[in-house]
Amino acid sequence: MDVQPSDNPASTGQVLDRLAITIESRLPAHGGDANASYVARLLQRGPDAFLKKVGEEATEVVMASKDLDVALAIGAGVDDRRAKLVGEVADLWFHCMVALAHYGLRPSDVTDELARREGTSGIEEKALRKAIAREGT
Amino acid sequence: MDVQPSDNPASTGQVLDRLAITIESRLPAHGGDANASYVARLLQRGPDAFLKKVGEEATEVVMASKDLDVALAIGAGVDDRRAKLVGEVADLWFHCMVALAHYGLRPSDVTDELARREGTSGIEEKALRKAIAREGT
Amino acid sequence: MDVQPSDNPASTGQVLDRLAITIESRLPAHGGDANASYVARLLQRGPDAFLKKVGEEATEVVMASKDLDVALAIGAGVDDRRAKLVGEVADLWFHCMVALAHYGLRPSDVTDELARREGTSGIEEKALRKAIAREGT
Amino acid sequence: MDVQPSDNPASTGQVLDRLAITIESRLPAHGGDANASYVARLLQRGPDAFLKKVGEEATEVVMASKDLDVALAIGAGVDDRRAKLVGEVADLWFHCMVALAHYGLRPSDVTDELARREGTSGIEEKALRKAIAREGT
Repeated sequence: MDVQPSDNPASTGQVLDRLAITIESRLPAHGGDANASYVARLLQRGPDAFLKKVGEEATEVVMASKDLDVALAIGAGVDDRRAKLVGEVADLWFHCMVALAHYGLRPSDVTDELARREGTSGIEEKALRKAIAREGT
Repeated sequence: MDVQPSDNPASTGQVLDRLAITIESRLPAHGGDANASYVARLLQRGPDAFLKKVGEEATEVVMASKDLDVALAIGAGVDDRRAKLVGEVADLWFHCMVALAHYGLRPSDVTDELARREGTSGIEEKALRKAIAREGT
Repeated sequence: MDVQPSDNPASTGQVLDRLAITIESRLPAHGGDANASYVARLLQRGPDAFLKKVGEEATEVVMASKDLDVALAIGAGVDDRRAKLVGEVADLWFHCMVALAHYGLRPSDVTDELARREGTSGIEEKALRKAIAREGT
Repeated sequence: MDVQPSDNPASTGQVLDRLAITIESRLPAHGGDANASYVARLLQRGPDAFLKKVGEEATEVVMASKDLDVALAIGAGVDDRRAKLVGEVADLWFHCMVALAHYGLRPSDVTDELARREGTSGIEEKALRKAIAREGT
């Protein structure tokens, strides 16, 4: 695997930023029509509707990963299983973005937080000590 | 809420792309040291270790959202609860990225999939019909 | 709260044992009809169908508990919220029992394991040390 | 598989009822000592502590089931994987019982609800129609 940035480093975030704007346009306060849009419907039904999807899609990420493990072990169906996993992570992130929109938040708030942690020395060390303590007992 | 793209549309994705490269450098095959890095440790322990975190962090996103609902209802503690939710989504996406790295995938694969769906007419309609059928029965 | 055994200590397990037999009768190998029974349908569709429900129902248990916390805090709607939580735990255990049946297992295997742990000194102590280590770091 | 009730139909529920009493004795209000008991510690830390475990253990049930699928497919390690699944369901039900105890509820409330549904005609039919609608769209 070639550890290089993508050819177009802007695209990853542009997709998320653009998608966030689409999702926000489906908010009831922005005139989202629950009879014409899945996202508008989720947002209108409120937190339990989209949070349930977050739990469900996380479970699907786990199952797709386990299926990909098998495909890799037997050397068959790897591309399909890898595509399936990508689709499930996309579903999970998408429903997280619906939650973020409901609460007036954006993917950039999440990436800002990730960037903040990146810049804070000692964070991985703390998580590491915690993980070692957990395993060691 | 102001529905505008962020000032710097590249930054959201640049953070994810950059973080993916850091995570990939922790892969056992790339010399990641499980005694020095939390991510290297997770990757060395294998899928069950990071998939368990995906399930756990999804649960934390759900709990943080419910807590934010309460803060919004009583008009107190909203900023703290909103920051907490952002942190939990960051944790969830981060551990998804660890899984992606393990399987030779990248955040850009996920955003490519999201962009592909955006360009496919009828996807939201299909999800909508499905949601209505689910509720109507 | 009155910490006494239920009047009829047999009933809790009798329900689970009886329900397990009903679920087992829905297995494809036992002639379960996927067009007449929800459980037969889940079992016919296979592990991903009922495991997804396990993840989904666990999320619903979490949400119902958080809602009950609010009801208790404001002293309103407690009975409804408590009944809702009971219903979600019932859904979760039920779908676990569908999984158990698929794999040739029974609720009594689970309660045997719980009884075995009860009789093994030191188990709570180990879990406690682990929990303290986790928090302390 | 022999679809018969267990030899001792009382035992399944007796274990749950007895375990519930032990868990209740760990409640802070009943003098549970967070420095001596894992359950007392979870109960003292409050809902987020044990609800997080519910989400985590549900994920472990899903992973153990997928591992058992593989063991069954290759015909190796089946007993170990089956025991692992039983252990994970035990962990999940156990942490649900901690939640129930916190909210003044018991396993018998859950089994009463399951028994109530059993006696209500039409419940499986409703769930079936819902499942068919979901798949058909």
